[in-house]
Amino acid sequence: MPRIEFMNRILILSGEMSAGGYACLRGERAAHICRVLRAQRGKPLRIGLLNGPRGIGRVESASAEEAVIDCTFEAGPPPRPPVDLLLALPRPKVLKRLWAQLAALGVGRIILTNADKVERYYFDSHVLNPEFYTARLIEGLQQAGDTLLPTVQVVKQLKPFLETEGFPEIGKRLLADPAGTRLLFSCLGPVREEGIETRVLLGVGPEGGWTPYELELFGAHGFELCGMGPRILRTDTACATLLGMISEFFRSMHIPE
Amino acid sequence: MPRIEFMNRILILSGEMSAGGYACLRGERAAHICRVLRAQRGKPLRIGLLNGPRGIGRVESASAEEAVIDCTFEAGPPPRPPVDLLLALPRPKVLKRLWAQLAALGVGRIILTNADKVERYYFDSHVLNPEFYTARLIEGLQQAGDTLLPTVQVVKQLKPFLETEGFPEIGKRLLADPAGTRLLFSCLGPVREEGIETRVLLGVGPEGGWTPYELELFGAHGFELCGMGPRILRTDTACATLLGMISEFFRSMHIPE
Repeated sequence: MPRIEFMNRILILSGEMSAGGYACLRGERAAHICRVLRAQRGKPLRIGLLNGPRGIGRVESASAEEAVIDCTFEAGPPPRPPVDLLLALPRPKVLKRLWAQLAALGVGRIILTNADKVERYYFDSHVLNPEFYTARLIEGLQQAGDTLLPTVQVVKQLKPFLETEGFPEIGKRLLADPAGTRLLFSCLGPVREEGIETRVLLGVGPEGGWTPYELELFGAHGFELCGMGPRILRTDTACATLLGMISEFFRSMHIPE
Repeated sequence: MPRIEFMNRILILSGEMSAGGYACLRGERAAHICRVLRAQRGKPLRIGLLNGPRGIGRVESASAEEAVIDCTFEAGPPPRPPVDLLLALPRPKVLKRLWAQLAALGVGRIILTNADKVERYYFDSHVLNPEFYTARLIEGLQQAGDTLLPTVQVVKQLKPFLETEGFPEIGKRLLADPAGTRLLFSCLGPVREEGIETRVLLGVGPEGGWTPYELELFGAHGFELCGMGPRILRTDTACATLLGMISEFFRSMHIPE
């Protein structure tokens, strides 16, 4: 069970809470509490309610099969990550590993779209099964210490999607592509003036890139092209660098130096 | 052979060059040229000499077993990435995947070190075998389009290493840790004034973090602490976001807006 090493916050489903504020956990999380944390009665744990507030739990009892936790939650949920991702559907092997990473990096909404260089059979993969990816997303949240599950949408036709989806919450639309010459931070600059409530939507292409037609389509829908330098990165590496930079940008607006 | 999808530049060893500027390639690269690129006589290819210049090749002949390329190289090698990495040795499973990613992101020197929260058995893994990691590093270079193999050093004792290694080329030493509150970009700021020739050394801790003793040791050797926000990232994700940001920073010094 290598996965359970990474539970930096143990997430609880609302259905696992009983009256009086106790949670009864089984499976991986119980094994983690018992074997990895070696938690005994009274030990405080970082916990969270999935899609709800973070909190502190105290172990009432813990065995490898079942852990009972006395839970105290914060008043409200943590802030939603200020970035959404529109990603050309990656190869199943890559997406399989990407789910947890995206949740850990912090994304509000994940839109997976078809594109000219996306193979059709990618859409038939089990990694697009909600049961599969929800477990991976929760794994990433527990790793990063967040509680808010990204929403996931699969788009089979990019053009009608862009034409009907107005992205009402989004203040800034960026498209990362090797064709872009502007730096990400320079594209984000105006967000600083527009205020911290602006959400950013980041578009990331398939490993073969967007086609000129697709680049034009995004341009017509208000996406600004930004580049990442001369190196060609794998989808998962590119997402980590781009989402990491956008987080850093938003942090730079909050943390005075 | 999923790996060969990613050859954005085909790397050639100097021993594979014959008089007259021809390279004779076998194995994965020949299969890639023949099957993925479907290259016929005369087709231009992006090539590079490992640890040497980039260039353009023209296919003389190509079968799945052997490809002969007429090579024309640039005058000198590409610039060395301006960042070195000092990384607490990750778990073998993580490091296995990390090699190619580090080479793709661009690192001059990779130092893998012991730390309090690094398990001793990690050092016995086959992923530290030079034959194993050199192949993975070349894979990452071919993905990213670079030719310069990072140098690799394995350090079993951190303290004597820091005491004897003067890092003569390094202008700025950074240590990423959850204990850090300054932003990476704010720590990098002075590099802008000191000039673009400054190399950066980035230290990244084990997934359990550096100990207070280790943090103090790094501080005594001139490392500045920087944070990455409240989210706890896996080593591979953290390396991608940090190295991506440092590259972006150096690009911001070269590209006028």
